[in-house]
Order: sequence, then structure tokens, then C-alpha cells
Amino acid sequence: MDEFELIGRYFAHMGAARADVDLGVGDDAALLRVPESTDLVAAVDTIVEGRHFPAGAAARSIGHRALAVNLSDIAAMGAEPAWATLALTLPRADKEWLDGFARGFGDLACAHGVALVGGDTTAGPLTISVQILGHVPRGSALTRGGAKAGDVLAVTGTLGDAGAGLALATGALEMRDPAAARELLQRFEYPTPRVEFGIAARGIASAAMDISDGLVGDLPKLAAACGLGATVEVERLPMSRALHAAGDEEKTRAWALGAGDDYELLIAVPPERFSELATRAGQLNLTLTAIGALHRGNALKWTLHGAEFTPSVQGFDHFRRASTQITV
Amino acid sequence: MDEFELIGRYFAHMGAARADVDLGVGDDAALLRVPESTDLVAAVDTIVEGRHFPAGAAARSIGHRALAVNLSDIAAMGAEPAWATLALTLPRADKEWLDGFARGFGDLACAHGVALVGGDTTAGPLTISVQILGHVPRGSALTRGGAKAGDVLAVTGTLGDAGAGLALATGALEMRDPAAARELLQRFEYPTPRVEFGIAARGIASAAMDISDGLVGDLPKLAAACGLGATVEVERLPMSRALHAAGDEEKTRAWALGAGDDYELLIAVPPERFSELATRAGQLNLTLTAIGALHRGNALKWTLHGAEFTPSVQGFDHFRRASTQITV
Repeated sequence: MDEFELIGRYFAHMGAARADVDLGVGDDAALLRVPESTDLVAAVDTIVEGRHFPAGAAARSIGHRALAVNLSDIAAMGAEPAWATLALTLPRADKEWLDGFARGFGDLACAHGVALVGGDTTAGPLTISVQILGHVPRGSALTRGGAKAGDVLAVTGTLGDAGAGLALATGALEMRDPAAARELLQRFEYPTPRVEFGIAARGIASAAMDISDGLVGDLPKLAAACGLGATVEVERLPMSRALHAAGDEEKTRAWALGAGDDYELLIAVPPERFSELATRAGQLNLTLTAIGALHRGNALKWTLHGAEFTPSVQGFDHFRRASTQITV
Repeated sequence: MDEFELIGRYFAHMGAARADVDLGVGDDAALLRVPESTDLVAAVDTIVEGRHFPAGAAARSIGHRALAVNLSDIAAMGAEPAWATLALTLPRADKEWLDGFARGFGDLACAHGVALVGGDTTAGPLTISVQILGHVPRGSALTRGGAKAGDVLAVTGTLGDAGAGLALATGALEMRDPAAARELLQRFEYPTPRVEFGIAARGIASAAMDISDGLVGDLPKLAAACGLGATVEVERLPMSRALHAAGDEEKTRAWALGAGDDYELLIAVPPERFSELATRAGQLNLTLTAIGALHRGNALKWTLHGAEFTPSVQGFDHFRRASTQITV
């Protein structure tokens, strides 16, 4: 099987079929029709074996993750995903691995109506770059910088699950409750990008970003983009029952604060519109939890039951950490 | 220097400033305005150390190459490049290397008016994926599949230079003529994507692709996309004086046929419009050389001075070759 057979076999029919693709995989470039009066939305994210997922992880979960982390960026803009390109560097052309990868990537692409419109395969250490393209009605994108002092800070879903899931996957954590362990592993291996919620939050949320590097690492970026300070009441961080089964309070809190793989959204919303947004989340079977507020200044304050609190974890930084995304 | 400082420092201001970028580097995704009545054009290409360029190559040439190979895909569509995203995986954050890389990438981006609108850095073996975005008036893109039987096959510029340049760079070739050696090295290290010519060929050429894997590897793809056969008169392949100084006839011919790094365009054009297209090329200080023709059937025929000829080289295939793009 040579490179080009590979491309034809796995890439040409992966993902959704879309009428707005004039030319997909197989030419020098794809030709795509962007709806009028929209902004094109473009993001890129790379995942590397041993950095973003453990060596030997299931190929299907790698394929899922490679697209999910990008869909999460689209979700954070309130945009609608449409097309993706894939740059896949892999040590060798292994049919079984590629089948699994294509299933993981393809199933998630189909679920979100995303067409794969370009691909590139090269030999080398396992590295997957996906560029996602989508669109959003002009002027209605959610950015990181739109919030005002007084806006509520909120997060979707629960935090920390994927951190515990990674600890399970690498053998750093053992659990007696197999159902909870399965749930946490699933959250790490198959993160759910909050695309529908991002779209539902347009016109209501004042700022948004996805939590890919952990709340402690990501909140400062949102606050800085808004030119504001923030206070987070740490006891309000939403955690799943499965996470509570994984460790004591200190441990679960560290995962919820610092683990970066949940791909939930961090949202700012004017207080008078919080309940409307929470209702929309509920309609999508998703919780939205207020965890604090933005205020004037540039101080970031973390409190635990009213007392000042210093998070013991840092946001994920690929150049400081060796091989996992959490430090607990 | 942490990852995020890196991104801010090197990526935020790389490339051209464009008025159609509503939001560039620094949010979850970029927001871009695509002109109405155009098709969006998207392509991705990855280069890996030791595969697409020798280990230890100058950082500036790597930055240039990473963008050039993508601009070449845009050129092959007759499109206008506009935006790019960069996924950079590198072993460590080395300031000197990044300065060189940013200069090589940034200078070429500015020369073509391309804005860098998104980036992602990860730690790992040196791998660079660029996604290029551009646009073309709807319905006017050059594809691989539009040619008719009787159309002339032509190539821009000269072939084989980069193959010899790679041999020089890796020490596989030594030359007595330093000026010719410099020229060949330059052609390998700083390939020139034929963007202006691609745009000039719209409405005239019937098919186009870029020669990234070598003529022997790429011509069959164009012929197959057109559903046609092709004949190439090998003695007509355009070669530079510098290439002739690099080896005997057999060697230079093998580079011209098989080396994949020239990033010239392979064009099909109706015979009655060839001279018009050659004139346009000339206005861009570029030669356009007829090398053969497309015909009915699916046979690919190579002739040398009228006699049948069997190329001794194959197109570049990342999964069959170890570390260079030529086999001579």
C-alpha cells in the first residue's frame, strides 16, 4: 500500500458529504462555498503521541480526539463546523490502525456534518494536525474578549473527569468502581465538543473559550482578553459523581482546576441572562454552572468557602511538562 | 519562554496584515471574510525533518519551504492565497531557530500577501504542517481534471534543479562550479511557488497541478484525473544551465524526471492557446515549455528522440523511501 493508495482509501470518503464542497480530496486543494454574510472560522490543533495521548492509545480514540479538540475551538466561537483537513504523520501504514483512526475521526465528523476535504500523509513519529473550518453569521462570533465587569463566569458540563481518565489510562490511578472508571476513561478518550451549545450561546454569552489547558491555565487568558480580573469560587466547580469516586477532595479539586482535556466551555454572560443560557444548556442535556464573576482590575482571585485559595496546579504547557497534561 | 509566550512572540505578527482578518492569532479560532462569488480554496501540506528536508537544514529555509509547498498548491488551482495556519511541532523552544524559521516563513508570506491567522506549537520531533487558505472566482479554478485529448502538456521553469540541490545539501554531489552549485542549492532551499502564473493561467489552461512528487509521479495523476493518456518527449524537459553543470545527461534527466522539489506547475492547455499562455509566462519572467500532449486512452508514453523510453525513477513516496526525495 503506497501513500497515495492510503489517501484514497482512508481519506476520500471520511466524514460527511456536503453539497457546498465543489471539489474535495484528490486535487491540489479543495474548493468550498462559504455562505454569504458569514465569517469564515479557522483553527488548527495538533496532537502528538506521548504528549496529548498516551503511547499505544486506541487508534479510534486518537482519531476522535484529533477532530474533537478542533471542533471544541469552533464551539468556543459559537460557529458551525463544516470542513476539515488532516495532516497525518505516522510511523508506518498499518491497516488496522488506520481503520480505527478513520472510524474515530469519521464517526465524529459525520455526527457534526463535517466533510474531510484535504489530507496529507507523511512518514514520521505519530503526529496529527487537523485544521477545522466553519462559519458564523458575520458579527455574531463569540470571542474571548467581549465580557464586561460584573459578568458571570460559567462552565459547561463537569470538570476534571478527563484528568482522572488520563490517570486511569496511564496506570497512575486505580479505582474500585468499574462503572465510574469506564465513565472517566470515556471522558478522556472520547471528549465531546460543545458545538451545539456554542451555537445556542450566540447573542447571549459575552465571551467564550474552550478549556483545553485546564481552568487555571485558561481563565487568565479570557480575563486578559477582556481586560478584567476574575474571582472563582472553587467549591462551585462542577464535578461528576464518577470523579468523586476517583479520589479525595484535594485530588478531585486539582483535576477540576488543572486537567486540560475536558473540552468544556468557559463562558462569560451578563448576570441577567444567565438563567436563559442555563435553560438553553438544559435543552441540550448539558449543565451550565456559575463558578464566579469578572470584575475591574486584573487580579485573579480563587476562593474556597470564602477563604483565599492558591491552586496547586498550573495550566498545561507542552514545553515544561514531559508527557501528561496533569500535575496532581 | 513558555509555549504561549512563544506563540505570541513569533506567530502573532508573522506574515502580511490583511483588512479581511476580523480576528487573527490569539483567540480559539480566526475570523476571516471571504469575498462573495468566490470559492474558498484550502490545502494542507506537512514537512518532516529527514524526509522533506535534511536534518540540520537552515531554519530560514525550513520556514520558507513549509509555506512554499502550500502556496504551490494554491498556484496549481489558479487561486489567490490569503491566510495560513501553522502547526509547528519542535523538539525545544530555541530562540535562534525560531527567529530563522519566522524570517523564512514571514518573508514569503509577506511577498504573497498572506496573513498567518492561527498557530499551534507542540513539543516533539520537528514537523511542520501548514494549511493555506485562498480564494478563486467561482467556477474559474484550475483543476487536475479539465483537459481534453489533444491538449498540450507544458511545465513552467526548469525541472531537476532542486533534486541536484538536495544532492548538494546532503553531500551526495560535489560540483566544481560554485555559482551553479549555489543556484541549485537555492532552488532546493527556497523554492518559488508559481502563484502569479497560476492566476494568469485561469481561463486559458485546461488543467493544472504542481510537480511536488516529480514528473514521473505526478503526470499519471493529472492524466488519470482527465481520463486520458499522455505522451512526453523527454528531450524537451526544460533544464537549467546550472543543472547541466551538475552531471551527465543520464543523471540530469533522472533529476528532471524524478526529483520532486522543484514546485513547478504541470499545465494542460489547448494547442491554439499555448502561445498566449507562454506569453503570459514570459511577462512574469517565467518560461513555459511544451513537453508533450494528452490523448485518448490511458497509456503513458515516454519517448527520447522518437524512441520509446522507460524512466528509471519513480515518484516520491514517503512510505517507500527513507530520507531523500530522489533516486538517481
